[in-house]
Amino acid sequence: MRILDGIEELRAWRRGLEPGATVGFVPTMGALHDGHLSLVARAREAAEVVAVSVFVNPTQFGANEDLDRYPRDREGDAERTGSAGADAIWFAREEEVYPPGFATTVDLPPIARRLCGLDRPVHFPGVALIVLKLFHLFRPTHAFFGEKDYQQCVLVERMVRDLDLEIEIVRCPLVREESGLARSSRNSNLTPEGREVGVALSRGLFRAREAFDRGERDAARLIAGAAVEIEDPRISLEYLELVDPVTLAPLDAVDPERGGRLLVAARLESVRLIDNIALGGEGGGA
Amino acid sequence: MRILDGIEELRAWRRGLEPGATVGFVPTMGALHDGHLSLVARAREAAEVVAVSVFVNPTQFGANEDLDRYPRDREGDAERTGSAGADAIWFAREEEVYPPGFATTVDLPPIARRLCGLDRPVHFPGVALIVLKLFHLFRPTHAFFGEKDYQQCVLVERMVRDLDLEIEIVRCPLVREESGLARSSRNSNLTPEGREVGVALSRGLFRAREAFDRGERDAARLIAGAAVEIEDPRISLEYLELVDPVTLAPLDAVDPERGGRLLVAARLESVRLIDNIALGGEGGGA
Repeated sequence: MRILDGIEELRAWRRGLEPGATVGFVPTMGALHDGHLSLVARAREAAEVVAVSVFVNPTQFGANEDLDRYPRDREGDAERTGSAGADAIWFAREEEVYPPGFATTVDLPPIARRLCGLDRPVHFPGVALIVLKLFHLFRPTHAFFGEKDYQQCVLVERMVRDLDLEIEIVRCPLVREESGLARSSRNSNLTPEGREVGVALSRGLFRAREAFDRGERDAARLIAGAAVEIEDPRISLEYLELVDPVTLAPLDAVDPERGGRLLVAARLESVRLIDNIALGGEGGGA
Repeated sequence: MRILDGIEELRAWRRGLEPGATVGFVPTMGALHDGHLSLVARAREAAEVVAVSVFVNPTQFGANEDLDRYPRDREGDAERTGSAGADAIWFAREEEVYPPGFATTVDLPPIARRLCGLDRPVHFPGVALIVLKLFHLFRPTHAFFGEKDYQQCVLVERMVRDLDLEIEIVRCPLVREESGLARSSRNSNLTPEGREVGVALSRGLFRAREAFDRGERDAARLIAGAAVEIEDPRISLEYLELVDPVTLAPLDAVDPERGGRLLVAARLESVRLIDNIALGGEGGGA
């Protein structure tokens, strides 16, 4: 596997690929876990060339967020991506990504202002900008995003359609630890106790899914059932919302065919955790 | 020359091109005049394939601007681009460019908020968005922009750098009518008298250029000399500014090596006219 350093090395590598080759691209913030590796494996099946980027993008972190605490593991990342079958990994340098004079912004107002964007107004504009830049640099035919960041999937798909990019966005299912806790690089900032407490989030989502499978369609009751499981003095809930899977608009009731998505965000030991589950629709459930 | 109708026809045409071919792209709002055709001719010299787009982009017009009055001439445009040597022209349809649910925005705050962007806050975000979309659709290796829209050239260059697009932006000199009036599709909305009065803009710029060539470097005096020529009760000046050619920051004095750009915008018979000239630098002058 090629380890690419510097933007010019990346460009040269990209130019050197077979002109018609399918290129599968997995953008990451590093500290790669099994969730990321499942994206790489999926890309390996779908594309002739597989490339991974690693960049802890400062523009998607607000002033008081955990940019400095975000875990980093360059050597481990290179080793794991290589084993998972990637052809190249690029470690981006901040001064090359955002050189002096940088002025361009990208935004998707309605989708980017709800849920994870409500209290973090810079987050999704930052995500959209870096993803767009990476798409221009890697010029992929396919790009792989995990449904763990469900709102991000919706936003990237919307941006790709709106900006007429010819890239197929492939959504990959969320990966869980054995306990049920959604895999996240941030889990490494939890204590062993925190990891146990955090399982409550997924327990809540599964409880809602069971209720949905038994025929419950009312959003308030589905959410209340989840909330009971999540309730814990150590968990500070940011949101627990049942939304339309495409528009992210809040639902009063779930139409099983169109489906709904139950999304949760919470803080535990100052670590921000998110999780989500499909209720009906293509995503799953009865 | 191929006349492309519909976004899927454009995509199919683009996919059918030789993979490594150089593609020169000229985005326009139609009502093509000699200025546009000089861009097509320049593209013809530089690239193997030459494509033109025509779209009067509503998102770059404010509520009280001249979107409805903007001249349109589809048949003439196709004929003139063909004669100028283009291989394809695409007439974009608004409902394909901005389908329902469209949400993405692009902006370049510092550059986009001055001069033509000061009283028209939607203008340059609209330009940036449509240019980016067209770049994704046409995937050009070279794109051609006239220096008549000087601020637009600076903005597009900045966006291409910031977003890591591998496109060479080729600036082409402003083209004038015999009288000196800068060529513009909007000139067709002027009366014969208006066309004569409007020549004052270029006369003002040339007077500043002559003063610069005689050694004048002081911005206030260069601007004052131009203003004397432009002064006319029928002309309502929007701005007359001497700025840095790259940052567009106002200058106190011109460094002949770095150069300056004298930019003017005015209304005459309710028609908005712009013009500009290089003082020193690479652009010209002593």
